[in-house]
Amino acid sequence: MSFILDARIDSSCFELVDWPLCRVLLKNNADYPWIILVPRQDSIQEIIELSTYMQHQLLDEIARLSLIMKTFFNPDKLNIGTLGNIVSQLHIHVVARFTHDPLWPHGVWQEDLSHNPYSPNQLKSLLKELRLAVESVN
Amino acid sequence: MSFILDARIDSSCFELVDWPLCRVLLKNNADYPWIILVPRQDSIQEIIELSTYMQHQLLDEIARLSLIMKTFFNPDKLNIGTLGNIVSQLHIHVVARFTHDPLWPHGVWQEDLSHNPYSPNQLKSLLKELRLAVESVN
Repeated sequence: MSFILDARIDSSCFELVDWPLCRVLLKNNADYPWIILVPRQDSIQEIIELSTYMQHQLLDEIARLSLIMKTFFNPDKLNIGTLGNIVSQLHIHVVARFTHDPLWPHGVWQEDLSHNPYSPNQLKSLLKELRLAVESVN
Repeated sequence: MSFILDARIDSSCFELVDWPLCRVLLKNNADYPWIILVPRQDSIQEIIELSTYMQHQLLDEIARLSLIMKTFFNPDKLNIGTLGNIVSQLHIHVVARFTHDPLWPHGVWQEDLSHNPYSPNQLKSLLKELRLAVESVN
């Protein structure tokens, strides 16, 4: 199996862990706690291109991540989506939303999304804590 | 089990069929072929509130719908998302996207979404054909 992470995902995210199916990455956007799951399968663009077994595994990993993010960020709502209109490699967004966040109640997948990166200090502690959280249930 | 469809979904959609877990509804927006799955479970807001069995069933129904929509609409991309920031009842959007549609490549879940209803004639034939398509694999 050859798996190469899309360069645009790679350059805008930080790797947290590899789960059985997906690579788990934190998006570098301090306005929204935002984690991306990328099935480590080559040339897949739609969920239906995965086998049924892998589709169920994907849902299991979405649920696992959802539970971690609920505990870790305590959001008002989780938003989960897979679009692929710009980056075609299949990837699933799980975003912790708050009623006070900039785009509430609309989706984050829009042109006027702010690109507010984490500060180095924020990132250092967040990555450390998140990696502990995602590894503890592996 | 008591299940009452949210009034805002009910008023903006047309029922197509009930699958084992979900009610399947066409959203009345002629700019985007857009179908919504609503698990017929009471008081559920997040996927993780469903049992693991139901989560897998949900993925099976998302995949079933995706295949039907790929065949029926021949889109450039499927966009699948669950937000619930406005309507809290758990519902999953499956939207057939085209590179020429009004919001491409951005998500449809935004403030400036057009509300362009189907004409009665469009609706009559579309609903007839879609109901055949979703019932044939039931």
